[in-house]
Amino acid sequence: MTSDPLVVFTPSGKRGRFPAGTPVLTAARQLGVDLDSVCGGRGICSKCQITPAYGEFPKHGVHVAGDALSDWNAVEQRYDDKRGLTPGRRLGCQAQIVSDVVIDVPPESQVHRQVIRKAATDRQITMDPATRLCFVEVDEPDMHEPTGDLERLARALAAQWEIGGVTADLSLLARLQPVLRKGKWQVSVALHKGHRDAVHRILDIWPGLHEGGLYGLAIDLGSTTIAAHLTDLETGEVIASSGLMNPQIRFGEDLMSRVSYAMMNPGGDREMTEAVRAALNDLTGEIAREGGIDPALIVETVFVCNPVMHHLLMGLDPVELGQAPFALATSEAMELAAGEIGLTAVNPRARVYVLPCIAGHVGADAAAVALSEEPGKSDDLVLVVDVGTNAEILLGNTTRVLACSSPTGPAFEGAQISSGQRAAPGAIERVEIDAETKEPRFRVIGSELWSDEDGFAEATSVTGITGICGSGIIEAVAEMRMAGLLDESGLIGSAGQTGTARAIPEGRTHSYLIHDGSADGGPVITVTQGDIRAIQLAKSALYAGARLLMDEMAVERVDRVVLAGAFGAHISTKHAMVLGMIPDCPLDKVTSAGNAAGTGARIALCNTGARAEIERVVREITKVETAIEPKFQDHFVAANAIPHKSDPFPELEKVVRLPQVSFNTGGDGERGGGRRRRRRA
Amino acid sequence: MTSDPLVVFTPSGKRGRFPAGTPVLTAARQLGVDLDSVCGGRGICSKCQITPAYGEFPKHGVHVAGDALSDWNAVEQRYDDKRGLTPGRRLGCQAQIVSDVVIDVPPESQVHRQVIRKAATDRQITMDPATRLCFVEVDEPDMHEPTGDLERLARALAAQWEIGGVTADLSLLARLQPVLRKGKWQVSVALHKGHRDAVHRILDIWPGLHEGGLYGLAIDLGSTTIAAHLTDLETGEVIASSGLMNPQIRFGEDLMSRVSYAMMNPGGDREMTEAVRAALNDLTGEIAREGGIDPALIVETVFVCNPVMHHLLMGLDPVELGQAPFALATSEAMELAAGEIGLTAVNPRARVYVLPCIAGHVGADAAAVALSEEPGKSDDLVLVVDVGTNAEILLGNTTRVLACSSPTGPAFEGAQISSGQRAAPGAIERVEIDAETKEPRFRVIGSELWSDEDGFAEATSVTGITGICGSGIIEAVAEMRMAGLLDESGLIGSAGQTGTARAIPEGRTHSYLIHDGSADGGPVITVTQGDIRAIQLAKSALYAGARLLMDEMAVERVDRVVLAGAFGAHISTKHAMVLGMIPDCPLDKVTSAGNAAGTGARIALCNTGARAEIERVVREITKVETAIEPKFQDHFVAANAIPHKSDPFPELEKVVRLPQVSFNTGGDGERGGGRRRRRRA
Repeated sequence: MTSDPLVVFTPSGKRGRFPAGTPVLTAARQLGVDLDSVCGGRGICSKCQITPAYGEFPKHGVHVAGDALSDWNAVEQRYDDKRGLTPGRRLGCQAQIVSDVVIDVPPESQVHRQVIRKAATDRQITMDPATRLCFVEVDEPDMHEPTGDLERLARALAAQWEIGGVTADLSLLARLQPVLRKGKWQVSVALHKGHRDAVHRILDIWPGLHEGGLYGLAIDLGSTTIAAHLTDLETGEVIASSGLMNPQIRFGEDLMSRVSYAMMNPGGDREMTEAVRAALNDLTGEIAREGGIDPALIVETVFVCNPVMHHLLMGLDPVELGQAPFALATSEAMELAAGEIGLTAVNPRARVYVLPCIAGHVGADAAAVALSEEPGKSDDLVLVVDVGTNAEILLGNTTRVLACSSPTGPAFEGAQISSGQRAAPGAIERVEIDAETKEPRFRVIGSELWSDEDGFAEATSVTGITGICGSGIIEAVAEMRMAGLLDESGLIGSAGQTGTARAIPEGRTHSYLIHDGSADGGPVITVTQGDIRAIQLAKSALYAGARLLMDEMAVERVDRVVLAGAFGAHISTKHAMVLGMIPDCPLDKVTSAGNAAGTGARIALCNTGARAEIERVVREITKVETAIEPKFQDHFVAANAIPHKSDPFPELEKVVRLPQVSFNTGGDGERGGGRRRRRRA
Repeated sequence: MTSDPLVVFTPSGKRGRFPAGTPVLTAARQLGVDLDSVCGGRGICSKCQITPAYGEFPKHGVHVAGDALSDWNAVEQRYDDKRGLTPGRRLGCQAQIVSDVVIDVPPESQVHRQVIRKAATDRQITMDPATRLCFVEVDEPDMHEPTGDLERLARALAAQWEIGGVTADLSLLARLQPVLRKGKWQVSVALHKGHRDAVHRILDIWPGLHEGGLYGLAIDLGSTTIAAHLTDLETGEVIASSGLMNPQIRFGEDLMSRVSYAMMNPGGDREMTEAVRAALNDLTGEIAREGGIDPALIVETVFVCNPVMHHLLMGLDPVELGQAPFALATSEAMELAAGEIGLTAVNPRARVYVLPCIAGHVGADAAAVALSEEPGKSDDLVLVVDVGTNAEILLGNTTRVLACSSPTGPAFEGAQISSGQRAAPGAIERVEIDAETKEPRFRVIGSELWSDEDGFAEATSVTGITGICGSGIIEAVAEMRMAGLLDESGLIGSAGQTGTARAIPEGRTHSYLIHDGSADGGPVITVTQGDIRAIQLAKSALYAGARLLMDEMAVERVDRVVLAGAFGAHISTKHAMVLGMIPDCPLDKVTSAGNAAGTGARIALCNTGARAEIERVVREITKVETAIEPKFQDHFVAANAIPHKSDPFPELEKVVRLPQVSFNTGGDGERGGGRRRRRRA
């Protein structure tokens, strides 16, 4: 036995001796080395590529001869001819061990590869999705030993993949017989096993080797916007991102007005459920076109959303969420068939996972932020603020995590603002006001130029200057305050008081003119007194929620702040702090996590272990109910003022860029965050 | 401890000592005594009624004083006032143990009571259905300890019923919140746990104590007829039975013509699937009306059927079943939601259990016959023949069981017979022909009188004499042979040859006139040469199948024969043997099991353990494929003749009556087997 060749795998360092002639894939499996294979070693899927290393390896105590593996064979040659194999690579199922050898498993050949998240915190996602693809050879039926085709498929999966327990629904069973025969008893199956399931569910079946991939959607279903990431379930890569407005807005801008609509209108909850489900189907079709894939290859969907959106998505009347004690129909995570919630655009057998809700006002979106930002693993006391129509706020460290939600309203998303619009090309997203001249300069989405720079007019000739988005209004209000156009109470001064003709009367109050496009038939974009009040209400609610958690934690300050938001804009941390959106904190301790809820959804999509983890974490979070807490009102009222009158952080002109989702109407997706975006044909 | 009172339960004999003041129900539970309770001891469901016995019990070594139990209390008085309590009975949850006592648990207070099957074999069904009713008190929501209503319901079921693991689908969740509040946090839930499930599924929920009962349907889905039994899931009682013709008949009389229809017509399988599902919904509505219950209380359905019916019910194309190797899409038992197979007339969350198929030609109906008749537990070698459009045939004893199916065609069900009709009032069901005069007498369904008895005309004035059903044609052909009207080859003689004017020419052959109703505008009922041929083909197929199994078992004779059939007729065993439908066997060893497949369905409906058992048994049955066995053809051809020319068993005028199902069109259900039949309003 000791004369058998030694095989060392890198990077794992796993090693063992195997008889000469053992395929590398077989050795890897026996050692538990993470080496992928879809076809089960038949030389057709190419997932098991490895790189043998030759020469002296003192660390491993081996000398590897040039012929440590068997010769390049016909299967490898055929694959190389057909698809091309990177030089130096071999197919692990074909190359056999001849003598001592060191084998490197490149990242793309690992099943549980890690995907670096493109965000400030650099969190890695280890791929371990609930759905995997298996190629399998099935015994043909034998009249003298009659068994069903499904049972023979299950037997083959047990023998060739060690997968025990397989189920299939009737729609899959209806496909089974023709596909098995078309594939000449060789088929690929998409197998789903949820983290709480005892058996694997066959989601789809294809004749021969399926090479079209498997995809999942991570969806952040907000009150105002819906954002989706189309993700390759094998690589974890986001191949398209898209979003649209939540069509439920026509039933009410914020959560409570939607609950009221359901209360006042019999069947109103049903109307809203149907509206959001139709929008999700539209969004799915759109994102699949953008990603250039067949939507039937979308086999999983993960949702994060607040409790009211959660109930309306599920077809549950949200009426109990509108009144104390804010009882959820169910708080635990759910695993469903896509058809149960009317998702017809994805694979007909696609599975849906919905993260758990934390409380009646603190939803699966807050759970997703907790999964993404992991406040419970922070040594520092961290405040995580996810800004949307409802803000999800988490405060904690390794000892304890608190959560609440605060009804900020849609102002931060550009809604309920006189010239407001959602983040799309043409929207003003950044604003500066000269403290001396009181003259503004701005930038619009779709151009990197400021409005007072050369070429700005040409750069914006296509998009125009259409309105002001959430990040733009935050900067505008903060800049107005710093330039002395606003007083501490938020009142806009007159032309006489401020010394600029841009302060124009509007009824008994004043507005500040940012841009007058009327000469070219464009809009007149102003910040009105009403806009200031909307932002004041929103920022007071956000601040009060954060303060409430700090009271509960009995602290006066936090070590760091993570700003997150799904609304597709850049938040300037400086302006956020000038406005008083968040408690004071050194500006260099304020970071952005981008769309943290969406990231949490992506993590849960790519890794089933994360589903188990967040279900556990949520049970340990302390829930704080803002709606009935008198101190919330106190903090809310106290936070109304805008105390800073000059720029407190002149040296730190820092803008944290949030990853963008593009919107599928009215925009060309210029700011989209997809890595492999494809244009619509 | 030894001074605690002794409690002895009968009939179980379980005994133990409990502190004075212990409720009888509590003592029963701790001892594992089978004492029912739905309300969990709250004195409202009355399921836990017991009878204390007083006096000397030498066997148990106790003297029971008259005051061995606590006094009759207000809860019992209220119940007695409202509903009446049988004298001597107490409520087990109210009556407390005072001193030594002997407590009898009457059968109706036992959960696992036994239901005697009304059939020859006297087999008992022990009640252990998959769905049970639980009354439960749920904690109200607490904003400071937020949990979903479902999670609090699950917690209550765990605490009050020791039921761990509860799931609910979205449609149930949508009902949950209003029902909990309407019931003031006291609700009844129907909980389903299949024998392979790890968790309980909430099928329905009602405010307060649900007293409407829970019901199940046992359905024998045949090629020609569909028979259903509406069963009380608590008592096992069949409260209504009904049947109708399978509407798929318009696509083909027998299985192979339906498979051909699917092969020749794109979407043809879908048409047949929709036809049978619509018929099942009609039948469900009808049987619920007959039973006087709300169809939403039907929470379970069990199906038995042959493989082609199985696939068409499931929406699976049966094309593979029409050609060797006759591969089933799936052979194992299935548990489904009713909605998955389009059953919309039952509870929207009702569960469906389909028995396993044995082979491509031997279906779940044969499995049900095996469950009902248990040939594998017989010391004698028993032949079980279930007659339908396809005959299911089992042969076996404790050492081995063989199964096959034989394509008899629908003649035995009265179809493809010139004056044939299904068994319904007005159909001729029994025939005698005088060997001297060659004159017939007959009886029709709906009357006990023979046609030559006084009052027959009046007795049949409502139904008329409409045709001849399956049992009638079997008797007619056998009697014709015994009276010398037929020769051994099955040829009907002329008037000259037979000496009766009832032999009338019809083309180049002859018919025998049974009844001429034309004077009153009724039909002329004859047995034609074509009818004889149809019966000869059917009986030859049946006989050949049985012989094939005997060959396989290497036996020349069987010890006993069990005749079963779902087609709702009486089979005369004597006539069956004259015809040569079954191999020779002493006539007193031929018994009837009624609708054995339907009984198997009922057993699986009432007892989940039986589901596990039949799944195990089916795996051990040896399948014999008739379609490709040359010997089947040999036996078939050899069995064509009708060898007997006189009555071989004059002393044994034995008719085995099969339990009836009534048909919901054209009949008044006079012969229905329901025990508690209610008429349509």
